[in-house]
Amino acid sequence: MGSAGCFIRNPGQYIVNMDRLFVIKIGGNIVDDEVKLSAFLKDFAAIKEKKILVHGGGKLATRMAGQLNIPQQMIDGRRITDAETLKIVTMVYAGYINKNIVAQLQAYGCNALGLSGADGNAIQAHKRVHTTVDYGFAGDIDIINTNLMATLLHQKIAIILSPITHDKKGQLLNTNADTIAQETATALSSSFDTQLIYSFEKAGVLADVNNDDSVITEINPASYNKLKEKGAIFSGMLPKLDNAFRAINQGVKKVIIGKAEALHGLLNGTSGTTIVNE
Amino acid sequence: MGSAGCFIRNPGQYIVNMDRLFVIKIGGNIVDDEVKLSAFLKDFAAIKEKKILVHGGGKLATRMAGQLNIPQQMIDGRRITDAETLKIVTMVYAGYINKNIVAQLQAYGCNALGLSGADGNAIQAHKRVHTTVDYGFAGDIDIINTNLMATLLHQKIAIILSPITHDKKGQLLNTNADTIAQETATALSSSFDTQLIYSFEKAGVLADVNNDDSVITEINPASYNKLKEKGAIFSGMLPKLDNAFRAINQGVKKVIIGKAEALHGLLNGTSGTTIVNE
Repeated sequence: MGSAGCFIRNPGQYIVNMDRLFVIKIGGNIVDDEVKLSAFLKDFAAIKEKKILVHGGGKLATRMAGQLNIPQQMIDGRRITDAETLKIVTMVYAGYINKNIVAQLQAYGCNALGLSGADGNAIQAHKRVHTTVDYGFAGDIDIINTNLMATLLHQKIAIILSPITHDKKGQLLNTNADTIAQETATALSSSFDTQLIYSFEKAGVLADVNNDDSVITEINPASYNKLKEKGAIFSGMLPKLDNAFRAINQGVKKVIIGKAEALHGLLNGTSGTTIVNE
Repeated sequence: MGSAGCFIRNPGQYIVNMDRLFVIKIGGNIVDDEVKLSAFLKDFAAIKEKKILVHGGGKLATRMAGQLNIPQQMIDGRRITDAETLKIVTMVYAGYINKNIVAQLQAYGCNALGLSGADGNAIQAHKRVHTTVDYGFAGDIDIINTNLMATLLHQKIAIILSPITHDKKGQLLNTNADTIAQETATALSSSFDTQLIYSFEKAGVLADVNNDDSVITEINPASYNKLKEKGAIFSGMLPKLDNAFRAINQGVKKVIIGKAEALHGLLNGTSGTTIVNE
């Protein structure tokens, strides 16, 4: 995929052609909707560049917890992962959702392979330490195994990451999928010309949260500060944008936020909000 | 691992050193027992040769189906896999059990990677066709992706196979784990010096099914026929032995049947029943 890559001068002073890589996160509302998910996966399968898909869980884990009478506790929008809840998210995210996505992509002619963070030690994390809240088996990321991921990508395999990591001491951990996408894109940006895409139910970052036609097409650090000062950004978007700037500041080429249904538009820059560094 | 390999003359007339590969199936009773499973995985992690572990499901899927009020139907010892049951076995086998095994192996210093048949198109199957019984989403194997498996094995990655396959048309399928072990060992026997190990709760093939000291140490085709004529083999063992001879006849070097707790004894030939071709 030389034509899709870019040329950079590396520290060894010779020219390296880096392949383009798309790291794409899909939101829970797409995972929950069979028809939308299938359409999205068809678009994803058609991407010719190297690609990683990161999925969350949607409502299935909550529904399953309800059927099994396991009460769910949320603090600040984060699920408290007790032992029984960890069992459910491992089954639902790393099992049901991940394997169904992989099987559908195979049907669309895309050779996909699903990984949890434990598989091949893909993503190592530690149990979250917090002064006041016990999040249970929630994991914060330590290391992304870029060797494993690069090896699979170079074999034209699309990697499908479920948001379950491990601590290399035998403990699985529930990890935020947005953060997995950002950390994975960042870690791979030294080997690939990497773009990070957050695809969800909105058309992008909106000037008016109720108007899908009010997409802010580009945000840089200066305009981000102004928008925040004006209180013009919906508070739910702030963690995503902070993640985006963290990625941009650490080597990711571009971050694009927009509608899952417009995947090709997001990739070619005709849809969504693009986060840039200057 | 040259010392563990063997020399054969391949069709190209040059000498090839084949690495040794162990394909090991663990029975459901080991998967169900946390202490036994952990001890087994410690032994498995210590194996220096290339290795693949195939696991079934144990009783967790049945228990989960009970909790979710999904009635389970068995015909001739085989689970009828309706759509809801497929969902459960995908969650339990490919999710919960597979990822917990992988995480434990990582803790024991073994770089393991879990695969369903859909991942990397590892195992392609078709929905079982049967004249009188509708087994539902039960899969019979068509192709093992030996390229993918060899690539992972050569990177010193242990492959952990869950008994979920796919049809490459988007459908996941529930597949017998004994058969997966046999077909995988057979397919890889042209690239590796392959041994297939069925580890379960008995010490081997027993002359007296109630006496663990009555292990028949070796069975070949002639002695197998005699034992069958005498009715000296417990009927539950017959499918395993038929699978074993099928593997032996198609290139697998040795098949060993015995107790999971005696894994090293099974590998070095001091425990269990060895199935040979002559």
